[in-house]
Amino acid sequence: MKTDIVINDQFWKRYTDLIRKEMIPYQWDVLHDQAGISIDKERDDQSIPSEKSNAIENLKIAAGKKEGNHYGWLFQDSDVYKWLESAANSYKLTPDESLLNMMDELVLLIEEAQEDDGYLSTYYQIERPDLRFRRLFESHELYCAGHLIEASVAHYKATGSKRLIHVSEKFVECIQTHFGPEAGKINGADGHQEIELALIKLYEVTGEESYVDLSSWFLTIRGQDPDFYTKQLIENKKKGLSTGEIPSINLKYHQAHKPVLKQEEAVGHAVRLVYMAAAMAEVAAIHKDQKMFKAARKIWDNIVKKRLYITGGIGSTVHGEAFTFDYDLPNDTMYCETCASIGLLFFAKAMMKNHVDVDYAEIMEKTLYNTIISGMALDGKHFFYVNPLEVDPESSRKNPGKSHVKATRPSWFGCACCPPNVARTLTSLNQYITDVVDNNLYIHLYQNFEGSFELERQSVSINMTTDLPYDGKTKLTVYGVQKPFNLRLRMPSWSSNIECKTKDLNFEEINGYLSVTIDSDKTIEIDFKLPVIEWISNPLVKNNLNKVAVQRGPFVYCLEEADNGAHLHLLSVTQKGVPENKSDSTLGKFIALKAKAERKIIDKSWQNNLYQSDAVDKIEETEVTFIPYHLWANRSLGEMRVWVNKK
Amino acid sequence: MKTDIVINDQFWKRYTDLIRKEMIPYQWDVLHDQAGISIDKERDDQSIPSEKSNAIENLKIAAGKKEGNHYGWLFQDSDVYKWLESAANSYKLTPDESLLNMMDELVLLIEEAQEDDGYLSTYYQIERPDLRFRRLFESHELYCAGHLIEASVAHYKATGSKRLIHVSEKFVECIQTHFGPEAGKINGADGHQEIELALIKLYEVTGEESYVDLSSWFLTIRGQDPDFYTKQLIENKKKGLSTGEIPSINLKYHQAHKPVLKQEEAVGHAVRLVYMAAAMAEVAAIHKDQKMFKAARKIWDNIVKKRLYITGGIGSTVHGEAFTFDYDLPNDTMYCETCASIGLLFFAKAMMKNHVDVDYAEIMEKTLYNTIISGMALDGKHFFYVNPLEVDPESSRKNPGKSHVKATRPSWFGCACCPPNVARTLTSLNQYITDVVDNNLYIHLYQNFEGSFELERQSVSINMTTDLPYDGKTKLTVYGVQKPFNLRLRMPSWSSNIECKTKDLNFEEINGYLSVTIDSDKTIEIDFKLPVIEWISNPLVKNNLNKVAVQRGPFVYCLEEADNGAHLHLLSVTQKGVPENKSDSTLGKFIALKAKAERKIIDKSWQNNLYQSDAVDKIEETEVTFIPYHLWANRSLGEMRVWVNKK
Repeated sequence: MKTDIVINDQFWKRYTDLIRKEMIPYQWDVLHDQAGISIDKERDDQSIPSEKSNAIENLKIAAGKKEGNHYGWLFQDSDVYKWLESAANSYKLTPDESLLNMMDELVLLIEEAQEDDGYLSTYYQIERPDLRFRRLFESHELYCAGHLIEASVAHYKATGSKRLIHVSEKFVECIQTHFGPEAGKINGADGHQEIELALIKLYEVTGEESYVDLSSWFLTIRGQDPDFYTKQLIENKKKGLSTGEIPSINLKYHQAHKPVLKQEEAVGHAVRLVYMAAAMAEVAAIHKDQKMFKAARKIWDNIVKKRLYITGGIGSTVHGEAFTFDYDLPNDTMYCETCASIGLLFFAKAMMKNHVDVDYAEIMEKTLYNTIISGMALDGKHFFYVNPLEVDPESSRKNPGKSHVKATRPSWFGCACCPPNVARTLTSLNQYITDVVDNNLYIHLYQNFEGSFELERQSVSINMTTDLPYDGKTKLTVYGVQKPFNLRLRMPSWSSNIECKTKDLNFEEINGYLSVTIDSDKTIEIDFKLPVIEWISNPLVKNNLNKVAVQRGPFVYCLEEADNGAHLHLLSVTQKGVPENKSDSTLGKFIALKAKAERKIIDKSWQNNLYQSDAVDKIEETEVTFIPYHLWANRSLGEMRVWVNKK
Repeated sequence: MKTDIVINDQFWKRYTDLIRKEMIPYQWDVLHDQAGISIDKERDDQSIPSEKSNAIENLKIAAGKKEGNHYGWLFQDSDVYKWLESAANSYKLTPDESLLNMMDELVLLIEEAQEDDGYLSTYYQIERPDLRFRRLFESHELYCAGHLIEASVAHYKATGSKRLIHVSEKFVECIQTHFGPEAGKINGADGHQEIELALIKLYEVTGEESYVDLSSWFLTIRGQDPDFYTKQLIENKKKGLSTGEIPSINLKYHQAHKPVLKQEEAVGHAVRLVYMAAAMAEVAAIHKDQKMFKAARKIWDNIVKKRLYITGGIGSTVHGEAFTFDYDLPNDTMYCETCASIGLLFFAKAMMKNHVDVDYAEIMEKTLYNTIISGMALDGKHFFYVNPLEVDPESSRKNPGKSHVKATRPSWFGCACCPPNVARTLTSLNQYITDVVDNNLYIHLYQNFEGSFELERQSVSINMTTDLPYDGKTKLTVYGVQKPFNLRLRMPSWSSNIECKTKDLNFEEINGYLSVTIDSDKTIEIDFKLPVIEWISNPLVKNNLNKVAVQRGPFVYCLEEADNGAHLHLLSVTQKGVPENKSDSTLGKFIALKAKAERKIIDKSWQNNLYQSDAVDKIEETEVTFIPYHLWANRSLGEMRVWVNKK
């Protein structure tokens, strides 16, 4: 099935332009240690390496072009691969010779750094070749391989060059030599899932089925022997390759506590979990494996029904960047890593390959329009790792339990997984908009695009123009239609009323989509009503009691100190907000929501008192301004909150 | 001034009996590794030593009576000293030959373990004699010396034996040889304050003024050179005594960021802060040092007006067991260490030596009747280190950010500072009840006691009988009066109306006390009204908005799942509670409070939904039962909360 979509949407063009013009050159400089910035530790932990990136330098040393030691995390290479993937994606959208030259330079360096046997992981090449594939719980060797493979696929799709695909194939051959069920091979998977997803992508461009089999095997072997990682460490010690105490390994953190088919909850490190679950869904779709799909669906349901923030964030704790338990969704200590929401987007997309359901599309949209783009500043050079729902800068600074909850986006992180992940994701946005299944063309996301789609017996084109995400007027022009097919338009949860202005169309509701048979070229005009929605939480979510989260269209909103003064917790909304067009030199054009509210007054009686038994609540009437969540922290340092008291 | 008070109060007798009959023998067994218990880590941290106590064993090894290595924290010795102090206090209350024998056995062991030059710290003696006094930021050598000294003073007061006083004097001599302003001596203080307090106690029984001077010098030298601790480490490295990276030292944690006279806020490790501040107040009182007193008062005000939990707990974060910032009082992630409230009690008592004020007495009472006794279970064999204001056992188990918030009291801790600290404090309760200043006899705490007091020109006796802490009827019989003196009775904040049934007494209010001149033997009958008080928090305390904390008499109350079912956050009190006499085989006799309330209903619409936009609040009327906070977690595992929603 070939689909070709060109997005020409003002909302998204802002981001892809920023990525092309600012972020990609900036990240190139950072990876080359030429950006002149200071790097933040992602949380208050002395052990986080934050003096420099050294990512390119590590590759040069591994390639024998420089002398020196490896610096940074064991997965520092992946920053380079993700940059390359985003550069390739961006090049595909807007070709640019200087970008091609930069990519060529990197491809050559990667070729030079690769060992003759295909192996490539700069830490182990430079520092501990004797420990290759021997510390899989933390080594990230296959994780980095995965990102290399994903970069090679993007590079090939953008440039037609197979140079990097060859590097990937050679690396996979090396992995196939060392891993597998056969005697003498390593019978376990990387501690950080990612290769599983990447192998599917490599299969998609090469048609090599053994890559799917390897992906499937990595998924299946996971958690079969809970002692696998520890046994590796014991073996290393026996062989004299390591000294010191053998660390106790948290198996749930790695989702290695039981076989994936038996896992029923989203546990452990959130990014690992969703990367794994996405791969499960991908393999299930290719192998038409219902068991695997059902296992993935169990994890999906657990996330969406019990462990998902309203912003599309996941991961309730900084400890292990992990899930905790059902309904445990603290707003001020959570993690909600940008990468985790990106992984959730992958998961949703992959689930859709098994079965199209509006639930998946809803989550794709939720992550994209909220937490994923919240991950980058509007200058393209500052990034969030953690995307909180409630911030008080003083608390972030002075309560060490919130050192990970940054109140402004840093320039870079010791662990810099998120910034290039946002870049590669937003530059490949076109893959999330539609799906073709049999004779059905699904529209998941509403934005301005042109696309051509290969249906069962024909190719049709669509041009969509829409005022979304801000207003509901939407026009689809379908052309090139020769035979009947079903156009299926998502019914977004945020629209109270979908009015079709084009007459004589017989819509039928299927899995949350409006399905209509199209048998000739046609223009369809639809108007989505976009009311202001006030969400309330399941009462089991302790922190959201008597609060609402406000949404309009795909955007979840928040209050910022810049608009509403300090002490946001003293405000209670008394009426639903009213949309108001806004334009701001920093934020650009957007729609704010103005709402009537009450503010609790701190009168003088409190000046020297922590507690009083006879104080009377004093309240003043006021008005508050909500802005879309993804825009927060682009003006001044201040408080922010998504869940707001409701009277 | 000599005061002799015998407490014969049912409420307190329960605790002192438990300590004598259960806790002291139990702790003896634990310290001898004979209790057959498993020891809990105080939080989820692999590095916490929890296999055994080994505290006695360490002393035996240091004494050369056993072979082996030191085990446990650097301050493991202090557990033994605190046990000895509590045993001595208890022996003074109720002499008992077998306890005397146990103490004798320990005194001998301590004498044997002490080096010829007076030094005593088993870790350094056994493992690193070359590092004596060379790692003061963490060594706890003087901290342990302090607890040894406090034990020796208690032992002397209880038995009249000076054997342990001699050990202390010899150790202090050793310290005086090594520490001081003179060239060649160590010009800094222990990372954990405690010796400062202990030296005052040693001075009180020996009259040796150089001990006060040394205490004062340790206080004054603190924070003068912020690099002092690091310089020690650099020196060690230069001398080849240590290898590896020099850790970065958090000076605020140690209150060593600036000289104590310049400190204006309560920062860092909470126990260290209050031990330090208590010593400042003690030294200020002896030296009549107004500067020092004012500095202590600044710290006091900051705690009481901005950083104190309603239960008398202090320390808002597990990270460094520390204070955070003004009004940051989270109820579910706080620390509120038992030892910190004990230290706050010491601080209040010491402040009173400078200037009697009802504020200090209020805090003494608040800590004693709430967080300090919450630190022990009613079986005398289980203890809280952390005293939360809101607990959900699932959260403690599954959210690693709350691993320190235990929902039941463990048998013992890797760091076992709290259990013997409670024991030594409650066995010396009689020192907190009254004060004599000039010709004024102050009654701070109301309980059943008999005491004789040396006033300016006479000795008078008092017998107090009271229904407090449960009911207000109180009778003071004063006898032996030959000349006029002022009796000053605290006006407790929790009594709305203090009715004196004895006529013809002219009361005058002074600093929160009712002062009356007594010139002959007299019986005074007073009735304190004990209304149910609903406290509300300063609105800047984010987590307490729209909540109340309930108090009656000195007791702060809480809701427990055992009485009110799960999901306490769904309950809102609608009316003030009504006292109800209760008796329970586990909790004993106490007064509960029954209050009308509403419960939010989780209806079926929530079964598979995290968020809804059109759900309607459903409420049922109900009744809740509050119990005194200190009794919580003595029945079944379950939720607890102090701050309760108020409609």
